[in-house]
Amino acid sequence: MDTLTTLETVIAQRQGGDPSASYVARLLAKGLPEIARKVGEEAVETAVAALAHDRQDVVGEAADLIFHLMVLLRARDIPLAEVCAELDRREGTSGIAEKASRSE
Amino acid sequence: MDTLTTLETVIAQRQGGDPSASYVARLLAKGLPEIARKVGEEAVETAVAALAHDRQDVVGEAADLIFHLMVLLRARDIPLAEVCAELDRREGTSGIAEKASRSE
Amino acid sequence: MDTLTTLETVIAQRQGGDPSASYVARLLAKGLPEIARKVGEEAVETAVAALAHDRQDVVGEAADLIFHLMVLLRARDIPLAEVCAELDRREGTSGIAEKASRSE
Amino acid sequence: MDTLTTLETVIAQRQGGDPSASYVARLLAKGLPEIARKVGEEAVETAVAALAHDRQDVVGEAADLIFHLMVLLRARDIPLAEVCAELDRREGTSGIAEKASRSE
Repeated sequence: MDTLTTLETVIAQRQGGDPSASYVARLLAKGLPEIARKVGEEAVETAVAALAHDRQDVVGEAADLIFHLMVLLRARDIPLAEVCAELDRREGTSGIAEKASRSE
Repeated sequence: MDTLTTLETVIAQRQGGDPSASYVARLLAKGLPEIARKVGEEAVETAVAALAHDRQDVVGEAADLIFHLMVLLRARDIPLAEVCAELDRREGTSGIAEKASRSE
Repeated sequence: MDTLTTLETVIAQRQGGDPSASYVARLLAKGLPEIARKVGEEAVETAVAALAHDRQDVVGEAADLIFHLMVLLRARDIPLAEVCAELDRREGTSGIAEKASRSE
Repeated sequence: MDTLTTLETVIAQRQGGDPSASYVARLLAKGLPEIARKVGEEAVETAVAALAHDRQDVVGEAADLIFHLMVLLRARDIPLAEVCAELDRREGTSGIAEKASRSE
């Protein structure tokens, strides 16, 4: 999972960089509405790929989704570690049972 | 990032388990359309939270999104490592530049 | 298509009404982020239904999507007629060809 | 609301036409997964526009969403009248109260 740590570092480095040279810099310069839109769209593509396309397409769309989610976290100044801590917390206490009790 | 490795293991363990006792077992038993729907919905919630809600809401929605994405990967028999390898590949070769050349 | 005109009138009448008695009043009282979230979610459900479910499910989800889109238009003070005028405009001038020239 | 009736007719006429000359023909030729993807994406764009952009953008995105939803209905052989009948049915019997009793 070093991949995501590396990706987080790379995204932070690109922030504020030359938009013409970096997709991440360009996306962050466009602002949160554009980034949020991309997260929603990549999730729709992942969902459609899971239902209708082959395995390699799903891998590619899931990678796109994670990538854009990490740009969104950067744009909101949220370290991935904070999201992981939230996942740990749910698993640690009442585990998936907590989730089970939430409205689905 | 051990969180995601642990989460992947837990999800795999719950697969085929008692749907009445485990949210993951229940979701996997419902099948891919329901799982794909949840990924899309959690991404919409993440996007809306990023634009309209406070930081803690974004953390919670991002955690939900990652969680359901990992259930989707399990349902399609795709290890997270394969998605990470795809992210590494993009970063490694032409890096974000590759993404820049793709249609946005 | 009197249905949509009637629906628009009903939604406008319910705005500001008792949230405990009307779903529309409740949704409008919750505000735009919640309404936007519902539009996104109903579209995901429509997309999944179109790919994986039977005809009657698609009809139901499409109805949900149109319904929530009309609540969103109300929340932004946009008459449906204005959206229809935009659709007419595209069709009228260069027609679908205009759309064809846009990035997809 | 003649707009939607006209649009439905135009979409039906374009089906099976030359994909290089018509966006609708091209979209229908691509098949349901691509059409479903577009519906999801346009809804995300509508939701983001409602939260972050000005009125004219919301009008444009809502028009895009309705347009692609109608292509999806065509692809599943569902007349818009059938979706309107479903909306009428909900309104007519217990009205919005029915919706209120459904899980949100």
